Amino acid sequence: MKQPKFEPSEDVLSGETADIYFARTIEILRHEGLNPVATMEVFTSSAGMLCGIEEVKALLAKVLPVDNREVWALNEGESMDKKEVVLRIKAPYQSYGLYETAICGILAHSSGWATAARECVAAARGIPIISFGARHVHPSIAGVLDYAAIVGGCAGCSSIVGAKLVGIEPAGTMPHALIIAMGDTVKATIAFDKYMPPEVPRVSLVDTFKDEAEESLRVAQALGEKLNSVRLDTPGERGGVTADLIKEVRVRLDLAGFNKVKIFVSGGVDPERITNFLESGAPVDGFGVGGYISSAKPIDFAADLHEIEGKPVAKRGRMPGITANPRLKRVM
Amino acid sequence: MKQPKFEPSEDVLSGETADIYFARTIEILRHEGLNPVATMEVFTSSAGMLCGIEEVKALLAKVLPVDNREVWALNEGESMDKKEVVLRIKAPYQSYGLYETAICGILAHSSGWATAARECVAAARGIPIISFGARHVHPSIAGVLDYAAIVGGCAGCSSIVGAKLVGIEPAGTMPHALIIAMGDTVKATIAFDKYMPPEVPRVSLVDTFKDEAEESLRVAQALGEKLNSVRLDTPGERGGVTADLIKEVRVRLDLAGFNKVKIFVSGGVDPERITNFLESGAPVDGFGVGGYISSAKPIDFAADLHEIEGKPVAKRGRMPGITANPRLKRVM
Amino acid sequence: MKQPKFEPSEDVLSGETADIYFARTIEILRHEGLNPVATMEVFTSSAGMLCGIEEVKALLAKVLPVDNREVWALNEGESMDKKEVVLRIKAPYQSYGLYETAICGILAHSSGWATAARECVAAARGIPIISFGARHVHPSIAGVLDYAAIVGGCAGCSSIVGAKLVGIEPAGTMPHALIIAMGDTVKATIAFDKYMPPEVPRVSLVDTFKDEAEESLRVAQALGEKLNSVRLDTPGERGGVTADLIKEVRVRLDLAGFNKVKIFVSGGVDPERITNFLESGAPVDGFGVGGYISSAKPIDFAADLHEIEGKPVAKRGRMPGITANPRLKRVM
Amino acid sequence: MKQPKFEPSEDVLSGETADIYFARTIEILRHEGLNPVATMEVFTSSAGMLCGIEEVKALLAKVLPVDNREVWALNEGESMDKKEVVLRIKAPYQSYGLYETAICGILAHSSGWATAARECVAAARGIPIISFGARHVHPSIAGVLDYAAIVGGCAGCSSIVGAKLVGIEPAGTMPHALIIAMGDTVKATIAFDKYMPPEVPRVSLVDTFKDEAEESLRVAQALGEKLNSVRLDTPGERGGVTADLIKEVRVRLDLAGFNKVKIFVSGGVDPERITNFLESGAPVDGFGVGGYISSAKPIDFAADLHEIEGKPVAKRGRMPGITANPRLKRVM
Amino acid sequence: MKQPKFEPSEDVLSGETADIYFARTIEILRHEGLNPVATMEVFTSSAGMLCGIEEVKALLAKVLPVDNREVWALNEGESMDKKEVVLRIKAPYQSYGLYETAICGILAHSSGWATAARECVAAARGIPIISFGARHVHPSIAGVLDYAAIVGGCAGCSSIVGAKLVGIEPAGTMPHALIIAMGDTVKATIAFDKYMPPEVPRVSLVDTFKDEAEESLRVAQALGEKLNSVRLDTPGERGGVTADLIKEVRVRLDLAGFNKVKIFVSGGVDPERITNFLESGAPVDGFGVGGYISSAKPIDFAADLHEIEGKPVAKRGRMPGITANPRLKRVM
Amino acid sequence: MKQPKFEPSEDVLSGETADIYFARTIEILRHEGLNPVATMEVFTSSAGMLCGIEEVKALLAKVLPVDNREVWALNEGESMDKKEVVLRIKAPYQSYGLYETAICGILAHSSGWATAARECVAAARGIPIISFGARHVHPSIAGVLDYAAIVGGCAGCSSIVGAKLVGIEPAGTMPHALIIAMGDTVKATIAFDKYMPPEVPRVSLVDTFKDEAEESLRVAQALGEKLNSVRLDTPGERGGVTADLIKEVRVRLDLAGFNKVKIFVSGGVDPERITNFLESGAPVDGFGVGGYISSAKPIDFAADLHEIEGKPVAKRGRMPGITANPRLKRVM
Repeated sequence: MKQPKFEPSEDVLSGETADIYFARTIEILRHEGLNPVATMEVFTSSAGMLCGIEEVKALLAKVLPVDNREVWALNEGESMDKKEVVLRIKAPYQSYGLYETAICGILAHSSGWATAARECVAAARGIPIISFGARHVHPSIAGVLDYAAIVGGCAGCSSIVGAKLVGIEPAGTMPHALIIAMGDTVKATIAFDKYMPPEVPRVSLVDTFKDEAEESLRVAQALGEKLNSVRLDTPGERGGVTADLIKEVRVRLDLAGFNKVKIFVSGGVDPERITNFLESGAPVDGFGVGGYISSAKPIDFAADLHEIEGKPVAKRGRMPGITANPRLKRVM
Repeated sequence: MKQPKFEPSEDVLSGETADIYFARTIEILRHEGLNPVATMEVFTSSAGMLCGIEEVKALLAKVLPVDNREVWALNEGESMDKKEVVLRIKAPYQSYGLYETAICGILAHSSGWATAARECVAAARGIPIISFGARHVHPSIAGVLDYAAIVGGCAGCSSIVGAKLVGIEPAGTMPHALIIAMGDTVKATIAFDKYMPPEVPRVSLVDTFKDEAEESLRVAQALGEKLNSVRLDTPGERGGVTADLIKEVRVRLDLAGFNKVKIFVSGGVDPERITNFLESGAPVDGFGVGGYISSAKPIDFAADLHEIEGKPVAKRGRMPGITANPRLKRVM
Repeated sequence: MKQPKFEPSEDVLSGETADIYFARTIEILRHEGLNPVATMEVFTSSAGMLCGIEEVKALLAKVLPVDNREVWALNEGESMDKKEVVLRIKAPYQSYGLYETAICGILAHSSGWATAARECVAAARGIPIISFGARHVHPSIAGVLDYAAIVGGCAGCSSIVGAKLVGIEPAGTMPHALIIAMGDTVKATIAFDKYMPPEVPRVSLVDTFKDEAEESLRVAQALGEKLNSVRLDTPGERGGVTADLIKEVRVRLDLAGFNKVKIFVSGGVDPERITNFLESGAPVDGFGVGGYISSAKPIDFAADLHEIEGKPVAKRGRMPGITANPRLKRVM
Repeated sequence: MKQPKFEPSEDVLSGETADIYFARTIEILRHEGLNPVATMEVFTSSAGMLCGIEEVKALLAKVLPVDNREVWALNEGESMDKKEVVLRIKAPYQSYGLYETAICGILAHSSGWATAARECVAAARGIPIISFGARHVHPSIAGVLDYAAIVGGCAGCSSIVGAKLVGIEPAGTMPHALIIAMGDTVKATIAFDKYMPPEVPRVSLVDTFKDEAEESLRVAQALGEKLNSVRLDTPGERGGVTADLIKEVRVRLDLAGFNKVKIFVSGGVDPERITNFLESGAPVDGFGVGGYISSAKPIDFAADLHEIEGKPVAKRGRMPGITANPRLKRVM
Repeated sequence: MKQPKFEPSEDVLSGETADIYFARTIEILRHEGLNPVATMEVFTSSAGMLCGIEEVKALLAKVLPVDNREVWALNEGESMDKKEVVLRIKAPYQSYGLYETAICGILAHSSGWATAARECVAAARGIPIISFGARHVHPSIAGVLDYAAIVGGCAGCSSIVGAKLVGIEPAGTMPHALIIAMGDTVKATIAFDKYMPPEVPRVSLVDTFKDEAEESLRVAQALGEKLNSVRLDTPGERGGVTADLIKEVRVRLDLAGFNKVKIFVSGGVDPERITNFLESGAPVDGFGVGGYISSAKPIDFAADLHEIEGKPVAKRGRMPGITANPRLKRVM
Repeated sequence: MKQPKFEPSEDVLSGETADIYFARTIEILRHEGLNPVATMEVFTSSAGMLCGIEEVKALLAKVLPVDNREVWALNEGESMDKKEVVLRIKAPYQSYGLYETAICGILAHSSGWATAARECVAAARGIPIISFGARHVHPSIAGVLDYAAIVGGCAGCSSIVGAKLVGIEPAGTMPHALIIAMGDTVKATIAFDKYMPPEVPRVSLVDTFKDEAEESLRVAQALGEKLNSVRLDTPGERGGVTADLIKEVRVRLDLAGFNKVKIFVSGGVDPERITNFLESGAPVDGFGVGGYISSAKPIDFAADLHEIEGKPVAKRGRMPGITANPRLKRVM
């Protein structure tokens, strides 16, 4: 993946997306003529993978005065400990106080998703994972979600906007809707093959109308060498995809000579199920993961002022002064 | 609240935010010359409050052919049962197939937030709740979050964008940052009073530097009649806000004659803690709720084709034909 | 069912199946010239349904002296409480002491099975249950097992020997082996219909090669009015039989006009699953239950002497003298 | 033990004990003129010790055509893994299809018992265990039970029929009934000694009328050198046999000079209690185990066709073709 | 019981038993010339029965100035709620500040014991309970323990000092030591009968050497009409006293005509076991309870100043001013 | 600590504190002229630290005949195993039988407390612990409690009587009452400093009126070098003392230059909380422990006769004869 170029939106820059009390704070300080150089530290409530810091840096680059700013941060994709400071900003407070809401929010959502993706990737021990989560989040953030999933280690994503953001091709197979609209899995697979450009892998979804093993053989016979994979997405009403089903489809494909056809599994996949599949020896060639990544809880971040004009301060419950963290890099 | 006017973004309308396989499906069907009138039903994976349907309707109004469409749906804010169909679309498939990702995503996030908000509101038995969740979500959806929170019953929200969406004033007090920047709670409270327009309620945050009860008395003595409320937001490092603390602050304010000063509580508030506060008899006048609402898991929605050109169909695991649901209203 | 006529086997009568220490006891008492009239009470270790008492009575009728015996018992199929006395024998000890092992063993196995059968029958609320347990027990007791299952309320059984014992026709459908041997479910069903006498219901097993719903429609179309039922026996590797599968098969059969074809369910059925099916509204017309009945733990029975020549006695831990139980009937 | 010679009963050979649907299958195949060479594999549902295979082989030897059969199996008493194939039969299907019920049933019961016996034997770390389970099973299978217990490692059994089957002397002590009939433990023990052949060990049951320690001393004083053991079988109503009781009896016997008298323990003994006794240092010389072995759940076995006339087949959920298992030995 | 006359010890009055910091506080206040009229409230950490208040009042009567004191309290033996104020003292602080340690300590131990005793009494539904706890506490407080047990509802106690305190006869039977010293239960019982005054009930301890049921009959035959009760105290090594044992002893005594001999049970008795005995229908005539009462956790009490010279005060976490409690009675 | 000189009270020596049945036993044996040399063993019901044995030896020294006594015991403060014999007395039974109640009671309470103290000391890994438990026990045993706490490893105690018993200075800070009486923490601290002798460490209690961190700085500024420690005792209503609070107070004191001021923590301290504090890195310099030690359950001890005139005896459930225990030392 290439590092995307983030551009803060007008709503963020204008403070529209901020909590009102930050807007008021800036207004009061202006009236009082107060604009102290203040050091704010942002720390995480729980361990995980940091994501969103590039988008935050793009925002800070726009708003902090070039000649009076110091910013330290962890890198995009680094692991972070519980309560670790991941970002430290030293600059006149009026220049950035308004953006505390946006900074925390960007990091919260992105880090939550990247952390969940990393758990899946770790469980899969090298088997590629495609992010299928766009359908579970508001479309305004579908791209950010898939960006975070790829930071977390996913090999691809299904949303077009996400794929664009990171400069890759979107990945996907065919939906049940195509098969139902065409009335038959084999017919739909042949049409897919006919009209899709050659670089799109032929992956047939085989659980719509018939037994998965039977359908796998039918599409393999219809497409021959061109068939890249079959996708198993059996719904829970039919017992979901089980390790035994995967093994059986593999054996039946192999017995019929289709050893090269891969098996791609989706539907409620999460790290626990991935682990169970692998420990049961199920021969999976790829996973599609949706809700586990997209429904990951945002990881809370909090921001505290620790110095005002060089003097250690802190609210009750926090330690006055800079928090030592040798992992922080000066980034601005 | 007034019903906001939703406007689908260009990214959604162009299909950028869609899963790639829907774009491919439309392309294949076009090549095949297939555009059957298809009936798609969207149902929810779990019980809760439906939210986002207005935004979905705004999208469908843009894309469905006016003379060949039927849409049934539940209302914004209605309760929905597990597996209940909340939306049914009957129209030529090519007109809407591309938007399945966006439709499910809008409903998933919005309904998850509204449902969580409703739980807090139910627990609070009439005590008003302000949504403070913007800081835990990506700024691109801060407004939608606060809209959903208000659909769920919240009395207000802290984000400017969210308040605009529903046509109310944003609500908020003052952040710790203002007090730390000014060096003293009383000084900050006086400045707040001096510069803020009279219609903004004077709410002082009293846990920054001193004991909450002591500070409450200090700001009450400084502002007199003008003080509307004190806000307790004690951090976990100091034991958090407890029912006993609220009671004690109330007793000490009353003993000093400040019976009219209200107490507003924030910091990790959720339905369980709200219930505990109320059952312990803690005299709370308002709650600020952040993470419980904003971190609510999206509620998964799924979409299935149930009729093609009037004929009952369904993939394995689903029932062919229209699913009866007398609660659905014809909306288009 | 008609009450079967039990006939004690030679091995039981000769004492071959007894614990050796009873044989020795009789020998010692003979040498000592001791043959007191002794009252033995048999009680159960746990609550359940009494079964086997008819077989025990057949044994006692052979061995007790006609002119010096009193036997009280509960009826076959009666409920019994924990620790309740279900059988009391008063007779010269040498006449029956040898049979304590057999008496306890007959009651233990039979009552365990009948009790388990009754639990299934209770859960099924009127839907008939067929005992399919013969394959889980040694063939020497297959008949006794099915007899007990029918005492427990089952409507039929699969073993020929069990059905003979109670004077009914054995019940069954077709095994996977027939379908595999013939290579196709429809072919096997047609052959079944061709050669079986008309009074045997046509029940087709529909999970062998294809999707259950698809196969159900195929056999229904092939046999028309003559098809009585389809049997679902989906293995665990494919998710087992679920409530949703049953509902879907029903809907698809009905949509095709086969409303009269019944659905019979087998495979790991037990009271909990029966209850779940019924509470989920799954339209089942019959259940086959195997392991839950046949693997039921035998219910332990113990026998104690409570009177010797009219004088109350008991070992430590037991109460001397006759245990009052007004539910006992004099049967000999 | 010598390997017993099993003889299939007439009921089994005639198919009386079979599930009716196998009888029907054979009939249909005959009418159709189908008798393919079929390969059936029998596998176990859970790990344990295989038992009953000798009895199954005796049955197969009677029914398979000598010139067209191949049978592979594990040995009697071998460990088997979950889902392991323990038996493979290749022969014309009509010759053996009728016996699937009996084959599975023999293995289920026998393996369940042998596995439970092995658990007790393992727990006892060399202390001999006698099977006392006959009283918990129907007398028709008392012999098979005790055979399986001995395959599982028991040193002896109480049923005469079981002991005969394996060619050993049955083992046992004396029942409470003898003592109650004679009115005193010492008197009963003296009578036992007087009439029993010298090779029968003198084991006195010491919990009937008096404190176990007191009674142990009384019988030891009465029988002197001839007393082999005392048996403790204290009922639950009196707290059951505890490690402390065993130790105390040992100390009191030793203090009185009866160091050679052994202590035999029975009554609700299972692997957990055996382990507790040994870990508490209770000096036990032998255990009698009843219900834990005889009430062991049968281990389910299932049989599947995997080849028809040399072609791999299988029902859905199973793998077509022969299942590789290098542990299988060709036995026929 | 008559209300005992408590007399504070010299160690308490001199402040020897106080925490040193109270002694220092008094000294500082004296130096400062401060002796404000202060109101101290004592409240309990958990619900229970108040005990010790009479002893506290005896102490306060000695130390508070007669003309400048007000004391409110609950009564000895009253129920108290969690956090309820049970004692309020208004007097010059120097007169009583030194005794906070003693006041809390007296109430803590006494209330803990009385509360535990009440639980046993409630469970026993009218069957008398004797306090046997002296052996588990330091002899300096054996009397106070038994006083509290009787306040809690016990019918008697075993310690001489406790019985004297409340003006009743101590209760007890005979220890194992007497029986072991005399070598036989019957001999010891006869000697007890010979030398004890006639008003002492003859209660024989029957588990020392022989089976309890056997020994019960022996002592009943030896003492005839004079035997009041047998006591069962079977140690855990022998299974403890069980409901079944009690029933069996009752039946065997009745069968022998000793219907009037009562059964008294001791050994690890607590409310749960009392309830189990009664629910099992065990015919118990009296219980001896030791450790459950004597090992009861002291109930913590805390003391806070709430007024100084008529002005409401309180430390953080407590409410300033008098705590309303209409149940308090003016006692001084 | 120096070993205190225990002196048995008159109530103990006269038998007043004994269970009445021991008094009766002695009386009966006197009438019978029986005074056998008897060996009594005292053993513990659970593992822990033995305490009280010195007080028991002081009692035995008074009552056993000098020329006919043997006493073996473990040392004060030694660990003891579950069921281990900790004391063996061989002497004429009449000389000591009356004192079984007192002996067991002294050991029970003292060992319970010492064991609990040791657990705290172990958890604190060298950080000193002061026993603050006097307020939770009856004043008659406050001294014994603190003696046991110090045997268990505590560095000091708050009760004057306990400190005297072991020959140390009592330890303590100041109570909330002093601060409330004087109206301000700083004023109270200054007065404390003014009147207390120089050897008493200046420890200021800083949670009464203000935020702990703020108050710590105020008293440090007021007392300067003379301030030894601050004590944190935050009540549960305010979240109790947390590891974060301790760290924050430390940081704020250090930032203000008061690195030498120590932090002492009290209030519901127990081994689990001590461990949590240390594992969280909270910089504690001393703990005050109250209820965990003083509310420790007494450890039950039981006494059994094992020899009478040299002959092994024992009641049922115990082993006759001397119990070997090489750890016992001859002490008399």
